[in-house]
Amino acid sequence: MRWAVLLAGGAGTRFWPLSTPDNPKQLLPLAGSGSSAEESVERLTGLIPRERILVAAGPGLAARLQQRLKLPAENVLVEPRAASTAPALIWATWEAHRRDPEAEVVSLHADWAVGDAGAFRRTAELALATARRHDRLVTVGVVPSRPETGYGYIVPGAPLDEVTRTVARFSEKPDAATALDLMAAGALWNSGLFAWTARRLLAEVEAHTPEVAPALPALAAGQVDEFFRRVSPISIDVGVLERSGAVAVVRGAFAWDDVGTWSALARVRPKDPSGNVVVGEAFLHDAHDCIVWSDGDPIVLSGVQDLVVVHANGRILVMPTQRAAQIKHLLDALPPEIRDTPA
Amino acid sequence: MRWAVLLAGGAGTRFWPLSTPDNPKQLLPLAGSGSSAEESVERLTGLIPRERILVAAGPGLAARLQQRLKLPAENVLVEPRAASTAPALIWATWEAHRRDPEAEVVSLHADWAVGDAGAFRRTAELALATARRHDRLVTVGVVPSRPETGYGYIVPGAPLDEVTRTVARFSEKPDAATALDLMAAGALWNSGLFAWTARRLLAEVEAHTPEVAPALPALAAGQVDEFFRRVSPISIDVGVLERSGAVAVVRGAFAWDDVGTWSALARVRPKDPSGNVVVGEAFLHDAHDCIVWSDGDPIVLSGVQDLVVVHANGRILVMPTQRAAQIKHLLDALPPEIRDTPA
Repeated sequence: MRWAVLLAGGAGTRFWPLSTPDNPKQLLPLAGSGSSAEESVERLTGLIPRERILVAAGPGLAARLQQRLKLPAENVLVEPRAASTAPALIWATWEAHRRDPEAEVVSLHADWAVGDAGAFRRTAELALATARRHDRLVTVGVVPSRPETGYGYIVPGAPLDEVTRTVARFSEKPDAATALDLMAAGALWNSGLFAWTARRLLAEVEAHTPEVAPALPALAAGQVDEFFRRVSPISIDVGVLERSGAVAVVRGAFAWDDVGTWSALARVRPKDPSGNVVVGEAFLHDAHDCIVWSDGDPIVLSGVQDLVVVHANGRILVMPTQRAAQIKHLLDALPPEIRDTPA
Repeated sequence: MRWAVLLAGGAGTRFWPLSTPDNPKQLLPLAGSGSSAEESVERLTGLIPRERILVAAGPGLAARLQQRLKLPAENVLVEPRAASTAPALIWATWEAHRRDPEAEVVSLHADWAVGDAGAFRRTAELALATARRHDRLVTVGVVPSRPETGYGYIVPGAPLDEVTRTVARFSEKPDAATALDLMAAGALWNSGLFAWTARRLLAEVEAHTPEVAPALPALAAGQVDEFFRRVSPISIDVGVLERSGAVAVVRGAFAWDDVGTWSALARVRPKDPSGNVVVGEAFLHDAHDCIVWSDGDPIVLSGVQDLVVVHANGRILVMPTQRAAQIKHLLDALPPEIRDTPA
């Protein structure tokens, strides 16, 4: 049967001061009226029922996620420590396989904004069918809309069928010139939407992933803490996909964004005629291309452009939109008494 | 005896959202630790005692001013309506004259920032002596430090003594080119610090100010409301000084600023090494030449310059410093529910 694994970890820093470790971006209504975690589950409606959606997250979020996503308690996999994506996805796939030896798994992240849920579902279904048909680990490549340097790229190789190609190579977070070259050469964004049969993924892990494979017996013994003690943190891309010869790519024909920075809201939210995104109470007077978010007091802008202005959790942030990707440097510099917002 | 008249009216709009009609700039600690109204009274210490300081203000502020300035109740002159500076100053001078027929009056505004209180006192004393000696209305001209277009200028005329000259003409709020010409020609800022004997001022009003003179009998009859009903609003400069032949100017050798806009704080407050003025809790990361004021939540700036950022009275304002002088246009455009801050 079809299963989904939703990765819902995340440090909660990139949307400071709105996001916090206790309320990270996947729980916030950044792109719409619901949180991206809730929208991720909704998006699977008709394809995979809640009983077969597993969510992996840290201990601080597990209970809240279960409640917000209305999942069975046993479907929430609590990662005892953050160890990148491979251990979580392998554990979840192992768990699906334990419950259902014929499990086919689609993996996704809880923080995505997706333009067309129907196209997303059809692509996920295609990826699952392709994973069965070719017995490969299938990646979904999204047609790039800009030379984004924050994403990974997939360079397609030889055709396997009308809609499927092998993967020639992966290119993670290229510089701007390389990103342009990749776009021109037909490379696709590595969305993180993957599909595989549980059996094939676990076989590839045994063959290629010494960072995780030796720890798998701990899962069989029901010792999750021991599993996480024994694995080395590594991403699924580096630890499995880039090493396996049994990878394929299908194209995703939907708008996709990982909503990684404040400036991403300009892509996933409606804008006013001056190019501003405004959430909450605000008045913009001769302002353009700004991102304004208030959970608190009304914000008034006059005569400014390309600014992010946020009031949330008792803090006010003002920075240029082009600085949004470097917010971690700012947070590293912030005194803890300002950085750590009131609960 | 020497008297002082402190004009403490003002709409409370120019430092929105910090200033409000109930808490205008003269009551705020904009330039220092005390309000400019309090500092104005302190600055007169040793020259004029509180018993001979009269303050003129609207009904909304009178009680608060009396308490904050520790003045006798009978020294607070409540203007029943705003009618510019001439009616208030003439009424106050008339009142000083009623209590003390030999009254000599120095007039000042409650919203000034002054660099050197000693130099200010010595100049006020010189202006009073000059007013007696030459029996003229004496203006204090401050040596300009920039071609400010928001001030009035005094062009000195013929010498009357070593420190006193006649006034060749006044020039109110010149354009930028004219302001440069005025500076180059030795013109001085019209500070609004004036000195006169009450007798001389009232004689000049009778001779030159039909907007006010016919209303004076109402004051003699104790009818202040009637006085204000009968006067036409007019400034002391236009209504008396520019029309009188008996005007003189002495130079003021002190830093003087009317703290008319948010950007003025950069002149009257200490700056950090990056040229920022910060009042309240804030963290500035690669920011320069900003004015930051928080009475509320901590403000974090990253990678911005030349911005005014304020959190006060439940409102957040972000605008370029060079927009500060046009804040009234912004306030006119603001919806009342945002403009009118919570009490």
